[in-house]
Amino acid sequence: MDRRSFLRTSALGGGAAAASSLAAPAVAQGAPRKLTMVTTWPRGFAGLADAADKTAENINAISDGALEVEVKHAGELVGAFEVFDAVSSGQADMYHGADYYFINQHPAFAFYTGVPFGMTAEEHNNWYYHGGGMEQHHSLGEIFNIKSFLAGNTGAQAGGWFRKEINGPEDFQGLKFRMPGLGGKALGYMGVSVQNLPGGEIYQALSSGAIDGTEWVGPWSDEKIGFQEITKFYYTAGFHEPAAGLSLATNLEVFNDLTPTQQKQIEIACGHADHWNLAQYGMNNGAALQRLSSAGVKILEFPDSVWDAFGSASQKVYEEFMGDDIFKETYDNYMEKMKASSGWINRASGAYARQRDRVLGS
Amino acid sequence: MDRRSFLRTSALGGGAAAASSLAAPAVAQGAPRKLTMVTTWPRGFAGLADAADKTAENINAISDGALEVEVKHAGELVGAFEVFDAVSSGQADMYHGADYYFINQHPAFAFYTGVPFGMTAEEHNNWYYHGGGMEQHHSLGEIFNIKSFLAGNTGAQAGGWFRKEINGPEDFQGLKFRMPGLGGKALGYMGVSVQNLPGGEIYQALSSGAIDGTEWVGPWSDEKIGFQEITKFYYTAGFHEPAAGLSLATNLEVFNDLTPTQQKQIEIACGHADHWNLAQYGMNNGAALQRLSSAGVKILEFPDSVWDAFGSASQKVYEEFMGDDIFKETYDNYMEKMKASSGWINRASGAYARQRDRVLGS
Repeated sequence: MDRRSFLRTSALGGGAAAASSLAAPAVAQGAPRKLTMVTTWPRGFAGLADAADKTAENINAISDGALEVEVKHAGELVGAFEVFDAVSSGQADMYHGADYYFINQHPAFAFYTGVPFGMTAEEHNNWYYHGGGMEQHHSLGEIFNIKSFLAGNTGAQAGGWFRKEINGPEDFQGLKFRMPGLGGKALGYMGVSVQNLPGGEIYQALSSGAIDGTEWVGPWSDEKIGFQEITKFYYTAGFHEPAAGLSLATNLEVFNDLTPTQQKQIEIACGHADHWNLAQYGMNNGAALQRLSSAGVKILEFPDSVWDAFGSASQKVYEEFMGDDIFKETYDNYMEKMKASSGWINRASGAYARQRDRVLGS
Repeated sequence: MDRRSFLRTSALGGGAAAASSLAAPAVAQGAPRKLTMVTTWPRGFAGLADAADKTAENINAISDGALEVEVKHAGELVGAFEVFDAVSSGQADMYHGADYYFINQHPAFAFYTGVPFGMTAEEHNNWYYHGGGMEQHHSLGEIFNIKSFLAGNTGAQAGGWFRKEINGPEDFQGLKFRMPGLGGKALGYMGVSVQNLPGGEIYQALSSGAIDGTEWVGPWSDEKIGFQEITKFYYTAGFHEPAAGLSLATNLEVFNDLTPTQQKQIEIACGHADHWNLAQYGMNNGAALQRLSSAGVKILEFPDSVWDAFGSASQKVYEEFMGDDIFKETYDNYMEKMKASSGWINRASGAYARQRDRVLGS
């Protein structure tokens, strides 16, 4: 998206900003308070746009008409990557998106989506709701004039599609691979020629040989794009996004101008959507993986040597940002809470699931 | 609790039933609609009472005063196990509790809490929100005049505390062990003398040698009771409750009499509490397990032979109920969705977490 599509929206954006100066009680008792939500997702995009739509639907349903959120998906008002500026400046009221798109605003935004060798979705929720994560999210947001809540999660993102089996880290040397974010930076340290293509261009690039492999989201989303028509080598576990949280960020002045009830409605609506969306991915990924496997896709796991290389490369990426105080403080709390969470999960539901699947033979 | 404490409440219960005949629009616009929530938890009981309180707090906060839920914990209005009858009959408006307490009403209620060799919390949510689980919950509830939503989850429950290490299934022969529900029935098939003691009596029983071991909830709750003062053998993974979902059930006539907005407020409030509570357990269990381990508790895992015996015994328990059509239909859908969910989870976040923990050395 170019800057022009962003500027075109300033008329409506200005309207939203003006609305925020209405006295809250008048809004609560009278006409609905209209809120424009811009998103980083194309309309109708399974899972991601669903999370945004569900969040808006929740807010509208539980506010009994006092709030009226209208969703403008990517490109309808501003481009996908322009939503942050639009909401921060008050030109739109809220965005739904993946905060790691905004690591150029601040690298600590990466934690609220997902980071290499970071938390699974279950761990992410432990940290976010009960380990100080939400409070850190709010502190960071304040700097940029936004108030954010998690409002969706894709769960673990798959390691990706390759043209051939991966036997060691040397197989990554010179590979042309599509991966955005901090994960892509890590692959760069492994000798990969990292490509950052938008979703709509990946199928063609993989098909023509312009790239040798790609990660996308998970079986449900990947199957819809049709990568299984091009290659059969699918690595389900990846290091780069062990979960991908999605956020609803509201312009801070708009948020502060809402009644306490309306603020709570947004918070509760987001938490419900977060929960609902993770389960949506989980159920659909499970069913899609069964179909891909039946269709002859080889479900593979990277060997230990590759995981070791992912680990070293990820560490180098973190070191790039450790000079920033907020990044380091977030990282330290995040890693401490991850370790506590993972200890219990591994020894309880992890050990259980391994034994159950062994005993039941699945 | 005896029946007398239940009967004492009939005056207030009758009031709640009468309130349900008010016309919905009048309630929505005027005085708050008061709803009495009874629970299966003692007041202040960490995690479990928290989930009930959070659900009520959510409903009250987002309904802007139109709904006013008052929580009456176990024994305050009716006894823990009397909440089902109280809500089904309209003597109270809603209960928060673990539905497997009500398998004598119908054995299929077990699935909405957790069953032996069943789903982890993540799988449970996949099934519940996107695999038909909620719809099955509603169908079952209709028979008993209630409308239920998940509104909490303890996550995996620990295998429990033993006086000595368990080396094979023969170590269960003649063991006096505290475990309620279908899990307890399964242990019965393994030669265990199964005890079903309420929470307040377990410490004393284990301490005096009246029982040889016990399961309770997980590190956070177990540490509060203080089992680590009596024995140091702690099995973190258990077969009996791989997750324990908690439900909010509203009397069906009361629910149907609410406005669509109020019904949605209850549903969204429950989903948020479900999410929040699972994370609460996850974060606190993680931290408590670290403390228990530092205090010299041995964190153990049952050997394969024991898991095989748990598996056979659990299968015998299921066979007891398969003659019931609703049970069988729920079981079939549940197991199909579990298999689809677990395939993806194991190959994505499961494989990831194993590699991450190996690489990071945690």
